[in-house]
Amino acid sequence: MATFMDVHHGMKGITAEQLSAAHKADLAIEREEGVHFQQAWADPESGTVYCLSEAPSADAVKRIHARAGHPVTEVHPVPLAIS
Amino acid sequence: MATFMDVHHGMKGITAEQLSAAHKADLAIEREEGVHFQQAWADPESGTVYCLSEAPSADAVKRIHARAGHPVTEVHPVPLAIS
Repeated sequence: MATFMDVHHGMKGITAEQLSAAHKADLAIEREEGVHFQQAWADPESGTVYCLSEAPSADAVKRIHARAGHPVTEVHPVPLAIS
Repeated sequence: MATFMDVHHGMKGITAEQLSAAHKADLAIEREEGVHFQQAWADPESGTVYCLSEAPSADAVKRIHARAGHPVTEVHPVPLAIS
């Protein structure tokens, strides 16, 4: 398992409700790929959404996001973390 | 106060020790601008570092990072969060 930060673009105007619904859609199926989405942050003005996950691979993150209806191309492993 | 995600580029090869030292340099002076850096993640391969902070403004985040020796241009407010 590794930690990943993925970045969605083009989400201008996203609301708290939409972010929550998107996150729930991920949570509903994430176990099928061994993924867990832990945190998410959104900037409605620039349309950027950041998601932090634990997953076996970047491809697993991409598959869950795609099946949940919000495909992502930018998935960075972040092996170093401070929290 | 607001929440911000800032993104550093060009940090290829960053080590855990360097990330920790950079974070400590921020913490040492952050109060002077009312900023608090909460979490950070790094991808040594792409050279990307993400920092999550609470701050009065994006400019305050930029000033602390610049004074600590790692200036950043990309600072996004992230008013929506799930954790």
